[in-house]
Amino acid sequence: MAVNLAPPATLHPVPGVRLGVAEAAIKKPGRKDLLLIELAPGSRVAGVFTRNAFCAAPVLLCRERLQEGSAMRAMLVNSGNANAATGSGGLEDARATTAAVAQVLGCAPGQVLPFSTGVIGQRLPLARMVEAVPRAVADLRADAWQDAARAIMTTDTIPKGVSRRVATAQGEVTVTGIAKGVGMIYPDMATMLSYIATDARLTPEAVKECLRRAVEVSFNSVTVDGDTSTNDSCVLMATAQAGGRDVGPQDADFEPICEAVTAVCVQLAQAIARDGEGATRFITIEVGGAASVAEARQVGYSIAHSPLVKTAMFAGDANWGRIVMAIGKAGVAGLDPAKVAVALDQVQLIERGEPHPAYREELGAAVVAKPEFSIRVDLGRGDAAARLWTCDFSYDYVKINAEYRT
Amino acid sequence: MAVNLAPPATLHPVPGVRLGVAEAAIKKPGRKDLLLIELAPGSRVAGVFTRNAFCAAPVLLCRERLQEGSAMRAMLVNSGNANAATGSGGLEDARATTAAVAQVLGCAPGQVLPFSTGVIGQRLPLARMVEAVPRAVADLRADAWQDAARAIMTTDTIPKGVSRRVATAQGEVTVTGIAKGVGMIYPDMATMLSYIATDARLTPEAVKECLRRAVEVSFNSVTVDGDTSTNDSCVLMATAQAGGRDVGPQDADFEPICEAVTAVCVQLAQAIARDGEGATRFITIEVGGAASVAEARQVGYSIAHSPLVKTAMFAGDANWGRIVMAIGKAGVAGLDPAKVAVALDQVQLIERGEPHPAYREELGAAVVAKPEFSIRVDLGRGDAAARLWTCDFSYDYVKINAEYRT
Repeated sequence: MAVNLAPPATLHPVPGVRLGVAEAAIKKPGRKDLLLIELAPGSRVAGVFTRNAFCAAPVLLCRERLQEGSAMRAMLVNSGNANAATGSGGLEDARATTAAVAQVLGCAPGQVLPFSTGVIGQRLPLARMVEAVPRAVADLRADAWQDAARAIMTTDTIPKGVSRRVATAQGEVTVTGIAKGVGMIYPDMATMLSYIATDARLTPEAVKECLRRAVEVSFNSVTVDGDTSTNDSCVLMATAQAGGRDVGPQDADFEPICEAVTAVCVQLAQAIARDGEGATRFITIEVGGAASVAEARQVGYSIAHSPLVKTAMFAGDANWGRIVMAIGKAGVAGLDPAKVAVALDQVQLIERGEPHPAYREELGAAVVAKPEFSIRVDLGRGDAAARLWTCDFSYDYVKINAEYRT
Repeated sequence: MAVNLAPPATLHPVPGVRLGVAEAAIKKPGRKDLLLIELAPGSRVAGVFTRNAFCAAPVLLCRERLQEGSAMRAMLVNSGNANAATGSGGLEDARATTAAVAQVLGCAPGQVLPFSTGVIGQRLPLARMVEAVPRAVADLRADAWQDAARAIMTTDTIPKGVSRRVATAQGEVTVTGIAKGVGMIYPDMATMLSYIATDARLTPEAVKECLRRAVEVSFNSVTVDGDTSTNDSCVLMATAQAGGRDVGPQDADFEPICEAVTAVCVQLAQAIARDGEGATRFITIEVGGAASVAEARQVGYSIAHSPLVKTAMFAGDANWGRIVMAIGKAGVAGLDPAKVAVALDQVQLIERGEPHPAYREELGAAVVAKPEFSIRVDLGRGDAAARLWTCDFSYDYVKINAEYRT
């Protein structure tokens, strides 16, 4: 059901990164559900995580270990079980799985980061996972990004990965990223799980700054259902294998690298909306003429989260009354409806708060009949703008989420 | 599909109130879609309205006329067309329909309040409505509350009305109210359309205060889909026909009257959730142990608006992981998961942030298999609490809203 989304064609290996997968039968047997990412010594890693107060055990451990500032050597990711709302036992499980990785790789447990996605509130099958770790280590390969993208999927229908190469003054740099969605998606700081690696020699400060910039306009600008996961995690790994000098946030080479990382993140975030649970439409929401970016995002999310807008889009109904309702309920103080304009792609629906004289139902219907289009809003209050992505709301969203645990 | 909801058995006439209905073929022919409520001279009226910035023309006119403080004599309500996002033309239409009423009843146009519900963004069929007004006037009867409840329905499957009689020091007083829902329901100040009348001799100040108190714990505590209508309106009419002295907010008789009005509003608000679009479950959400009522409501609405919680409830899945997710994403600063408790009716799911040792899946499943139950949360932060009502999220919600305009 994904909208205009194909599996990634080519995912370039990133020097300094090896990936291995294994079957640990975490939710059920029959698929590789464990991913190990190994990083060369000297890699610099930054992460952003969910703001959900009930954040999962692996998120707590990631935050702790990244704060300690150890040189990270590996990431262990499992799908099928979120290890969330599992209390102190869940935290022990996360420590135990990463200790198993550390033992085989010969590093300290504090140099391994754990990640989990899947059902909330169940303990991990610890023995099966620990037992699977050596198999994942034995499977480590530089060209396993495709397998990695598959291993982290839950309700995703298509694996998500993007790869770019970018020229810098010090030579070519590679950026490759993978991500998974595709429900409980309204990231508040990061999205579900996403791993982006580059061989650029970014300083620790540059890795953080690059991730911050990229996430803001990518994973923090996408929503499927307005529900924020307990496990959202996004990691940027810079292996420094490209050589040359260290690249800090002020250096000339930082910009092209940051742009490449951002482009990868934007495409991954869009892939999550394209593969949103039950999605039949991929919708870009552009809000301009706002007094601030925050206000533009507020209006954008009000539209993107409205069940009435989303069901109308599913029906191919250019129901601009619902769009107007969603703008009006966004809570923008002093919003003047008489200054608001709304368009679907190039078709103007509302001008100065009223239906555009040239608008006819067929024009709007032709836009929303397409699998992807834009809802464009001008608030007539200022110059700030924001863009975000979402999908429609279909029978299949209800079906997928009504049957998820059975 | 409504959950444990029957049409009202008895709706007592309210001395000083007559109601008439007529067919104006507003959306389509074949039903009485116009309601006229006539009030005896000396009635006092208060109203609360949507906070949606794109509020409809009739809402603008109601606010203006109530502010002018004229003695209201009639309400004209139509279903099938919201007269919203219709600009200055829509405002003229609302003035014209109320002027038609004023002419027949022999009062000033400023003494008539207009209300509309239905599709957004289409002009009213003015000629047909004006032509139907004399037929509604000819139909005026004291015992037409049942017909009135039917006339204002849109996607409601069952008419909604509640009636109470209450003893006061000055004798018995009647309170009768009707309401309609049942989509775009997340009232921010009032709900869709609701009309409550009493023959009590409340002062203008007492009518306002009584409505304010009643709405807060009724229509402002219900949600179907988190979408706030452009047309939400709730009106309390006190005809003073019960006689005696004026009852102000400080008088002893105010309390029993206010309690009766509140009880009517609570039952009407619950009826809206019971008949929520596609509803198969009626869910009460009780949040306690909060630092403030606002915080308790914030958490309650985060649960009530979560598509993942709502689809799990539709599936009869006691998916407490999603409830915990919704509590965590509510944005309560400093929330400590380790102090949170969650129960379904009397079944304790979560204690101190972790699954209760005695909890078994069958216990939760037995609760959510029922057509109505409570989700009870204790935040472990203070003494404030809030209660609200909602429904689940089913295939039929998508179906109803995907097909609404066709």
